[in-house]
Amino acid sequence: MTDLLTALRAIVGDSHVLADESDRAPYEADWRGRYKGRAICVARPADTQEVAAVVCACAEHGVAVVPQGGNTGLVGGGVPRVMGNEVVISLSRLNRVRAIDPANNTLTVEAGCTLAAVQAAAAEHDRLFPLSLASEGSCQIGGNLSSNAGGVHVLRYGNTRELTLGLEVVLADGQIWNGLRGLRKDNTGYDLKHLFIGAEGTLGIITAAVLKLFPPPRSRAVAWVALASAAEVVNLLGSARAACGERLTAFEIVGRPALELVLKHIPGCSDPLRTPADCYALIELTDPAADADLSEALQAVLSAQMDAGRISDAVLAASEAQMRSLWALRENISEAQRIEGISIKHDVSVPVSSIPEFLARADAALREAFPDLRIVSFGHVGDGNLHYNISKPVAADNADFIAQTLAVNRIVHDIVADLGGSISAEHGLGQLKREEITRYKSPVEMALMRSIKQALDPRGLMNPGKVL
Amino acid sequence: MTDLLTALRAIVGDSHVLADESDRAPYEADWRGRYKGRAICVARPADTQEVAAVVCACAEHGVAVVPQGGNTGLVGGGVPRVMGNEVVISLSRLNRVRAIDPANNTLTVEAGCTLAAVQAAAAEHDRLFPLSLASEGSCQIGGNLSSNAGGVHVLRYGNTRELTLGLEVVLADGQIWNGLRGLRKDNTGYDLKHLFIGAEGTLGIITAAVLKLFPPPRSRAVAWVALASAAEVVNLLGSARAACGERLTAFEIVGRPALELVLKHIPGCSDPLRTPADCYALIELTDPAADADLSEALQAVLSAQMDAGRISDAVLAASEAQMRSLWALRENISEAQRIEGISIKHDVSVPVSSIPEFLARADAALREAFPDLRIVSFGHVGDGNLHYNISKPVAADNADFIAQTLAVNRIVHDIVADLGGSISAEHGLGQLKREEITRYKSPVEMALMRSIKQALDPRGLMNPGKVL
Repeated sequence: MTDLLTALRAIVGDSHVLADESDRAPYEADWRGRYKGRAICVARPADTQEVAAVVCACAEHGVAVVPQGGNTGLVGGGVPRVMGNEVVISLSRLNRVRAIDPANNTLTVEAGCTLAAVQAAAAEHDRLFPLSLASEGSCQIGGNLSSNAGGVHVLRYGNTRELTLGLEVVLADGQIWNGLRGLRKDNTGYDLKHLFIGAEGTLGIITAAVLKLFPPPRSRAVAWVALASAAEVVNLLGSARAACGERLTAFEIVGRPALELVLKHIPGCSDPLRTPADCYALIELTDPAADADLSEALQAVLSAQMDAGRISDAVLAASEAQMRSLWALRENISEAQRIEGISIKHDVSVPVSSIPEFLARADAALREAFPDLRIVSFGHVGDGNLHYNISKPVAADNADFIAQTLAVNRIVHDIVADLGGSISAEHGLGQLKREEITRYKSPVEMALMRSIKQALDPRGLMNPGKVL
Repeated sequence: MTDLLTALRAIVGDSHVLADESDRAPYEADWRGRYKGRAICVARPADTQEVAAVVCACAEHGVAVVPQGGNTGLVGGGVPRVMGNEVVISLSRLNRVRAIDPANNTLTVEAGCTLAAVQAAAAEHDRLFPLSLASEGSCQIGGNLSSNAGGVHVLRYGNTRELTLGLEVVLADGQIWNGLRGLRKDNTGYDLKHLFIGAEGTLGIITAAVLKLFPPPRSRAVAWVALASAAEVVNLLGSARAACGERLTAFEIVGRPALELVLKHIPGCSDPLRTPADCYALIELTDPAADADLSEALQAVLSAQMDAGRISDAVLAASEAQMRSLWALRENISEAQRIEGISIKHDVSVPVSSIPEFLARADAALREAFPDLRIVSFGHVGDGNLHYNISKPVAADNADFIAQTLAVNRIVHDIVADLGGSISAEHGLGQLKREEITRYKSPVEMALMRSIKQALDPRGLMNPGKVL
């Protein structure tokens, strides 16, 4: 491997090939410490040409590559495996904003830009890039693209996939595909960008993208609504959408146990309503017009539902500060759950109409199998995505609890599959769900995926052991 | 081929294998009469299983298949070639609405449903399926999917691609891929549906789809605006989008020559403004709320622009009838142009910001090369898609005019490519632009497309001679 290290140093410079154990370490493990692998080295190319040269050099040596962005993933997709025979390619130095075209509502950025930097570049030109995630300060757009990241605004703006018009990709053979088109209509053959988006680096390395921009919101309304059941939440979603259309920017569900963890562990959070309810909806409307009567529109939806007896209580934020404190109840759930103790998490989706049935069936099946487990469910009900998490029973031992993971997953995922859902709604497969997915995808679909992989990466050198 | 005919009759029934020349004829030519091929026969399967069996039988005989929907395409993608060794598979009998899920805002339909039938099925459940085309009464959703059809509402709702959540596809080997998922978030591997959408039947035959639905519009405002230049049209688009967000449902540009043809040839059409202008914008806002003040919102945008001297005149429709007559000015352009005489048409897109430059450069280059040509341009400026058509000079001979097609195309397409645009924005490649595209796509991209084709259709039996 000395030859390869020499070749890589010639391409990216000595200081950008990290071969020492201590230098490699931050790139070899995911941030949660669930996956710890080992790499020959970490290469930090400065631009697309260098990425291509690094891929070529590795291919010449028959060495696989693992592209890595901000290393904020949740499924072990961006870290090397344990064998120590892979090269990590960090995209962090490809962090330029290449172009912005406000009249075309597009932004061309390199893969290593953080999501926050992308948002800021859009904002500088009075535009919105709507993707928004908890990790936006450190996750990189290349990782968002490779994992087709979601978040709380998918209901209105779509996933990262829907926010992308063009890509630049370094292919397995080191060639560069320049598909950086900023077009809303282009029917000239196969839409190749969709192959690379969400492929977790297994078909090529995304080095740049043309992203869609939107007018920034100038009006906003936020409500926190108490409801008797998930079925009522889905009903309210339908009413809000019919009345408010695309102004409905977020529609989240929070179960009572999730709220209680936040109230228990997060300083400054309080229950905005007097009487506890089974579950809650957090609703946000936004509009590009500064004078849109969004509070009025939201009030009208809620009043009608309250008159019909379908809402038990609700609060409409009267100030920016109130909006922030209502959102804090939702945004702090993961942190509160972490403080409470370990948990088994699920990132699933089902058709929106099946959310009540999913919750009823999964709750019942888990309670029967594991009577002491605590179910903490919340999520993006507007697009059918639930974070259905199981907290450790108060009295249980950590190891005993973790030992139940596979059995718990099986119960939850089987119900998801039975309802036509997805066992990875927004986090991807990575190493975590690579085996699990073969249980739920048809042999025909698995074969199709493998034939695509074979066609684009015949030697299996692009992020092996992930996805497939 | 007697064996194959016998096998096909056993699968779909005698009456659904059309082998006589007169029975085949309507399927062998496109509706405009530009492409006339010949088939062994036309098979009309009743369901997905029969489609799969037909594909298998043809594959066993080494015979290629040509899937056909409503046969309303513009690029010869749905008709057989001239050799007479292909089987046309008509999807017309797969015309069932399989399921509707209003709470999930999804509709599951078979490929042979007409677009109008899909729209009607959505409307029955108080939902909108927003795809809308001139041929909607006869085009089929399978064809819309295979050609990724666009239309006038792409600005708000996207192309057919963006309106699709799941697909069912019969693959080249006769296997059925059931990807009929109605999920807004699903990150479990490669997004295969995007490969088949827009592939014009060259990778498999789409037999059913899960489509996205929206709340139906209950308020509407339409304006016709006179402007001094295309640059002013693009500027107005930006202002309208910033003020109105997603309520901006259509934003069309109409050049003065296009309007004049409509006024000349279409009975009942009259110029809504007194003074002729260089070009016009047709703007439509819609909103799901019945009481949305859309006229007021549109008026505010137009007043501000008029005060700034950027609009010369405008009319806001005061009734449904007026809305229809303003839209008639746009919708009758193709018909008026047909009455006027033959034309050379282009379906191109460029970044929205480049539309003024495209028009200036293409107009100048064509006028220099062919001083007598008449340029009739119009299109969906909101998504950068122009129908840039050239009408025959009044005095010219038809054959002399048509002989200039390649030279005219070369001038127009080279400028499109130079601006990072697409030479087929919404009509596809089919037979028409299959050669032309190799001039504009990079060898890397052509090779990627060929490797996908090779992976999914190694024997080249799916709609050969189209796209690639």
